[in-house]
Amino acid sequence: MYLISPSGAVADPATIDLARARLGELGFKTAVDRTALAVHERFAGTDKQRLAGIARALKQKHPIVMATRGGYGLSRLLPFIDWQAVADSGKIFIGQSDFTVFSLALLAQTGASSFAGPTAVYDFGAKKMDDLTADLFGESMRGELEILSFESPDSDPVDARGVLWGGNLAMVASLIGTPYMPNVDGGILFLEDVAEHPFRVERMLTQLWHAGILARQKAIVLGRFTDYRLGAHDNGFDLPSVIAWLRSTVKVPVVTGLPYGHVKVKATLPVGRKVGIATGEGMAHLVLEEHF
Amino acid sequence: MYLISPSGAVADPATIDLARARLGELGFKTAVDRTALAVHERFAGTDKQRLAGIARALKQKHPIVMATRGGYGLSRLLPFIDWQAVADSGKIFIGQSDFTVFSLALLAQTGASSFAGPTAVYDFGAKKMDDLTADLFGESMRGELEILSFESPDSDPVDARGVLWGGNLAMVASLIGTPYMPNVDGGILFLEDVAEHPFRVERMLTQLWHAGILARQKAIVLGRFTDYRLGAHDNGFDLPSVIAWLRSTVKVPVVTGLPYGHVKVKATLPVGRKVGIATGEGMAHLVLEEHF
Repeated sequence: MYLISPSGAVADPATIDLARARLGELGFKTAVDRTALAVHERFAGTDKQRLAGIARALKQKHPIVMATRGGYGLSRLLPFIDWQAVADSGKIFIGQSDFTVFSLALLAQTGASSFAGPTAVYDFGAKKMDDLTADLFGESMRGELEILSFESPDSDPVDARGVLWGGNLAMVASLIGTPYMPNVDGGILFLEDVAEHPFRVERMLTQLWHAGILARQKAIVLGRFTDYRLGAHDNGFDLPSVIAWLRSTVKVPVVTGLPYGHVKVKATLPVGRKVGIATGEGMAHLVLEEHF
Repeated sequence: MYLISPSGAVADPATIDLARARLGELGFKTAVDRTALAVHERFAGTDKQRLAGIARALKQKHPIVMATRGGYGLSRLLPFIDWQAVADSGKIFIGQSDFTVFSLALLAQTGASSFAGPTAVYDFGAKKMDDLTADLFGESMRGELEILSFESPDSDPVDARGVLWGGNLAMVASLIGTPYMPNVDGGILFLEDVAEHPFRVERMLTQLWHAGILARQKAIVLGRFTDYRLGAHDNGFDLPSVIAWLRSTVKVPVVTGLPYGHVKVKATLPVGRKVGIATGEGMAHLVLEEHF
């Protein structure tokens, strides 16, 4: 596994050492790109350094390329990445949060898939690694995870197949109207976010709605929306209000409870691959490795 | 002047009384819509109430319709507003912040113009009203303000004419890819924001850039970007970094110093009207009432 830092700077290099040790225990040999620990302002190096890191990742020998962390920084690099070269490399890319725009731009520009999942710094480099997250990652990378089932007590009934896509809502919304937004019809859109007030979550969902994107999906799958703060003036407005509004506005089944987001327990999800989704009896099932 | 509340709830009705007294001194008779003080969650009434308030504003006798305040709430109402009826009413609409999406949707759907400027709650209802803001508002409403000149020590050279449009950056960005985004070629785009970290400002500008919108403008005019907090990890990254990046990335003249934003001293600006912009000798001049 080859570690690159296309977004925010790695604050503590020791997290990378710990991540490499943990990934080693899981059977993954690792190498760190030579500027993965670079720092420029809040970024993991200048734009040029980060672009060079991505380019090197395409040519090295490890089959998996993992972003050390998210943060912010990929957005302004998107026009300068050779997306066809990324697709042609055959590498398996994985990242989270800011990395959403990498996965979606790759899908939009080439149709190639990648993964949303744990990162070196926040997951494998955490003081305490979540075992389930590690297991799901290992199984996904080996192509062994056939079905991801999770508790979902208030999901709408759905039994559908489509391209799984999405990620961090703010990053998904930031691509609307650009050449980096995939044009997915009949997809299964998964979304999560962190530190975004419910009114911002609603505003971003509204943009996806007004842009005609939500209505074209077969299901909207909600991961975790965490670490936001309400004010006194919210007066009862909260994330459940937003989800109720979403359900009443968009005639697309909403599935809740996806173990994904800025949380310890997170699944590793293919972005741009056809999957199945079904709900029933308080559970939801994401069918990842069906033979369609 | 007719006061409506299409967005956030008015926290203190006394601000409306004070605003009416001040507007009266400026020579404006006022009336308050019957649900302008309604409260539902964080909103100034339910969606139905707020839509009814907008509809009533089209039919009453006062020529100017002012939003009491911004906040959040117009986004999800946009598809349910009869934009042609708004344009046909001939009313002069004015508001700020969240109201940006009203002005831009009106422009996108009908070509009609409106105003970005002070609001009842935050300006005319403030403990201390800014005299210049009041004067500029009065002159603008009477069509007497021909040129708005402001200090602009580091603007790019520009001498251009085009449609003035824009407003709150977050609200402008939230319309990209939707039917409510005006398709303005050769425009003069003005932007401000409040409590948005510079990385978010950059991300929103990046979306406008990737969507091809910035390159089609004759000038980008920056108002005030206020009340954001940097973190230690920003490490020198700040709004000036974003503006430097913008200048190096987009080959469009950037004009700074526009007295507009979530600040006391704010101009009243026509949105959707052709204006002129020129810079020189540390000053910028927005020509509002030229005969083109």
